[in-house]
Amino acid sequence: MLEQLKEDVCKANLQLPKYELVTFTWGNVSGIDREKGLFVIKPSGVSYEELKPEHMVVMDLEGNKVEGDLNPSTDTATHLELYKAFPEIGGVVHTHSTFAVGWAQAGCDIPLKGTTHADYFYGDIPCTRNLTPEEVEEGYEKNTGKVIIEAFEGLDPVYVPGVICRNHGPFAWGKDCFQAVYHAKVLEEVAKMDFITKLIKADAPNAPDHIKEKHFQRKHGPNAYYGQGK
Amino acid sequence: MLEQLKEDVCKANLQLPKYELVTFTWGNVSGIDREKGLFVIKPSGVSYEELKPEHMVVMDLEGNKVEGDLNPSTDTATHLELYKAFPEIGGVVHTHSTFAVGWAQAGCDIPLKGTTHADYFYGDIPCTRNLTPEEVEEGYEKNTGKVIIEAFEGLDPVYVPGVICRNHGPFAWGKDCFQAVYHAKVLEEVAKMDFITKLIKADAPNAPDHIKEKHFQRKHGPNAYYGQGK
Amino acid sequence: MLEQLKEDVCKANLQLPKYELVTFTWGNVSGIDREKGLFVIKPSGVSYEELKPEHMVVMDLEGNKVEGDLNPSTDTATHLELYKAFPEIGGVVHTHSTFAVGWAQAGCDIPLKGTTHADYFYGDIPCTRNLTPEEVEEGYEKNTGKVIIEAFEGLDPVYVPGVICRNHGPFAWGKDCFQAVYHAKVLEEVAKMDFITKLIKADAPNAPDHIKEKHFQRKHGPNAYYGQGK
Amino acid sequence: MLEQLKEDVCKANLQLPKYELVTFTWGNVSGIDREKGLFVIKPSGVSYEELKPEHMVVMDLEGNKVEGDLNPSTDTATHLELYKAFPEIGGVVHTHSTFAVGWAQAGCDIPLKGTTHADYFYGDIPCTRNLTPEEVEEGYEKNTGKVIIEAFEGLDPVYVPGVICRNHGPFAWGKDCFQAVYHAKVLEEVAKMDFITKLIKADAPNAPDHIKEKHFQRKHGPNAYYGQGK
Repeated sequence: MLEQLKEDVCKANLQLPKYELVTFTWGNVSGIDREKGLFVIKPSGVSYEELKPEHMVVMDLEGNKVEGDLNPSTDTATHLELYKAFPEIGGVVHTHSTFAVGWAQAGCDIPLKGTTHADYFYGDIPCTRNLTPEEVEEGYEKNTGKVIIEAFEGLDPVYVPGVICRNHGPFAWGKDCFQAVYHAKVLEEVAKMDFITKLIKADAPNAPDHIKEKHFQRKHGPNAYYGQGK
Repeated sequence: MLEQLKEDVCKANLQLPKYELVTFTWGNVSGIDREKGLFVIKPSGVSYEELKPEHMVVMDLEGNKVEGDLNPSTDTATHLELYKAFPEIGGVVHTHSTFAVGWAQAGCDIPLKGTTHADYFYGDIPCTRNLTPEEVEEGYEKNTGKVIIEAFEGLDPVYVPGVICRNHGPFAWGKDCFQAVYHAKVLEEVAKMDFITKLIKADAPNAPDHIKEKHFQRKHGPNAYYGQGK
Repeated sequence: MLEQLKEDVCKANLQLPKYELVTFTWGNVSGIDREKGLFVIKPSGVSYEELKPEHMVVMDLEGNKVEGDLNPSTDTATHLELYKAFPEIGGVVHTHSTFAVGWAQAGCDIPLKGTTHADYFYGDIPCTRNLTPEEVEEGYEKNTGKVIIEAFEGLDPVYVPGVICRNHGPFAWGKDCFQAVYHAKVLEEVAKMDFITKLIKADAPNAPDHIKEKHFQRKHGPNAYYGQGK
Repeated sequence: MLEQLKEDVCKANLQLPKYELVTFTWGNVSGIDREKGLFVIKPSGVSYEELKPEHMVVMDLEGNKVEGDLNPSTDTATHLELYKAFPEIGGVVHTHSTFAVGWAQAGCDIPLKGTTHADYFYGDIPCTRNLTPEEVEEGYEKNTGKVIIEAFEGLDPVYVPGVICRNHGPFAWGKDCFQAVYHAKVLEEVAKMDFITKLIKADAPNAPDHIKEKHFQRKHGPNAYYGQGK
């Protein structure tokens, strides 16, 4: 079942090492079929070198495995919460990419310092709070999703397609699994650029609002003119 | 038309990923035929992996597309302003290279700290001011060019073949599209070296004027002796 | 003798350049056969490009060469001390990987700032004290091992499978030579992430204990659920 | 003439891009035949991709070109001064490697913080003073050599086989052209490690003298025991 989606999700997972977003098995991508209410995700702890479409695991939105010989990623419950809370998204990715983790461990939002950021993220990339001991006990991965959703109160996940989880690392998403990976790469590049900026000038202000507005809208607004149109 | 120039501009665009100056489609190169008053530029949002000479777009200096099936780069109007204001230049490049963006987001000129810089840039690499909301509204890409030109009042664009646009990223140029890419790479390397220097010693002085003079002149002056002559 | 172990140790040594953990010959891996009381180690100063299983040197736990045409790594006596003091380990690796050395030269423990660290190291990665002049005189490499063991008083080397030696660099270990290399790579990645974190926010707190506990246990505890089980 | 030396010097030059020590043509290696009093050096401004042994230029120690169709490196006069002042050396290399330049632009010696450094450089790597305007005028490249020699008053160039020239970049040397390149790579790695250390702990002390002594002597002293002997 879902053979095309399995192929896509496998391919999207393999983009993670290509884009230098993962070491070893430290990342996972999923994609959802909204009509069927099923999503496909990387198996846990399988190396990218041997990953094949048939290894992918099919899950339903209650967290039951529907197909697959292997255990799904340990982060599956987080993906599931995001799919339930953000109905517009079709793919989710988690990595431990270096600079994004650097910011997550510092507990700081990644500030909107320039147009590279504004082209894809309409505002600072938020850093979540830590889970409480009770939340960890009750369901670590599920509550990681809940805490992300809490951080997006008042934010549109389509306009800000990523987050960093405190003391952990980034999650990103998009309309499908490929766009999710694309956003994960943007997030890492922006995290690196902003690190450099911070070290050159600690109190450099964010990019002005009219620049943020312009760059995001020329790519994503109703009159977007970047690229080759539809 | 302009088949050789299209090949050259395509080839110069493909040097951007080779020199690690771009992620995804975040860069574009153009080259001009001064006699015909036409320039050739990368299409918007096309990935480097599939870029071919026949994708290149031919523009005139009024901003009309003269040939090409695809939309030109969204930054075309910036290239156009630079070609009009700087008649000595034959190629223009824009990237979001990491360290140059770092400085641009910090809003700081890249200081002339050493001979690597002085070999190609005769002075600090200026950082432009931000566009006003009115300038963005009236024509963002055109006015990006205007603001660069404003930053070069009193500067010779042949002696300082590049700039960083505040909260955005670098533009560089040269006698043709290949030299423009060369200068974009120098700019990025210098941005990285100066970052390191700043973190080792925040108040390290610029290189002395006589060193700046010597290095620039031995490569570019009337008695230049670097390389194999003409 | 020990042909399989020689092949494994050779292969594990060749992972060091693949994982970008060594420049030139600055690293070595060994693996032990506990039943026979013999360990296999890289020869000294042989480049990775020409390394073959038959170059491996077999040593006993008194420090005698049992087989091999070449001199063993100069760090052999350090490996030997670790095998004697930590009976649970089956492989040892030493590198001069860049960020781990950066912390070692700073004389600071690598702090547990996030889950990447907690997934493999249950607590800060300790930095040893320096050897005294007498200890250097008496036996530099042996006493390097002794000083590591001293730093692990009260620590379980299975739970914290690595260390940085002051003004020198990292040692890591594991159940076999491959896991030792894996841990050396984790240690370097964590050293880089923590460097970035420190520069973004010098006083960022360590990850909370319940996060440390959760991540280590879900991979290594009695109810571990990461990966595909046994 | 000197066909073997030309091959060696060409090969050593080609190691510079392999070791990521140069961008474009920003580096050059030479090697000397002490008996004949002739040295072989890279031609100026020729790209590494097209470099062949027959391009090498043969010079005598008065600075006359003895053989070769191309102009020698602009830095030839610096190499020449070093060969005259340091009779023990057989090869010289100059690069603009990134971290070494960072320290050179900061005007700081690269401090001996650890064993990676001590394995090859017996003490801090000195940063020269700047040339005066008169020295630049009188002979920039020759006086660059003179200023290096001045920085080595009281230092043994065999024990400290490299230097950084203020606001410029590193020179390194060795018993032949290959060892010179090796030392240039060590210098760059050490420059990066020390940069990281400085940012983690600005006032971290240098490595103790007995560690410096031990590491240098076990590789280079009369009773050296690193490697496979002679």
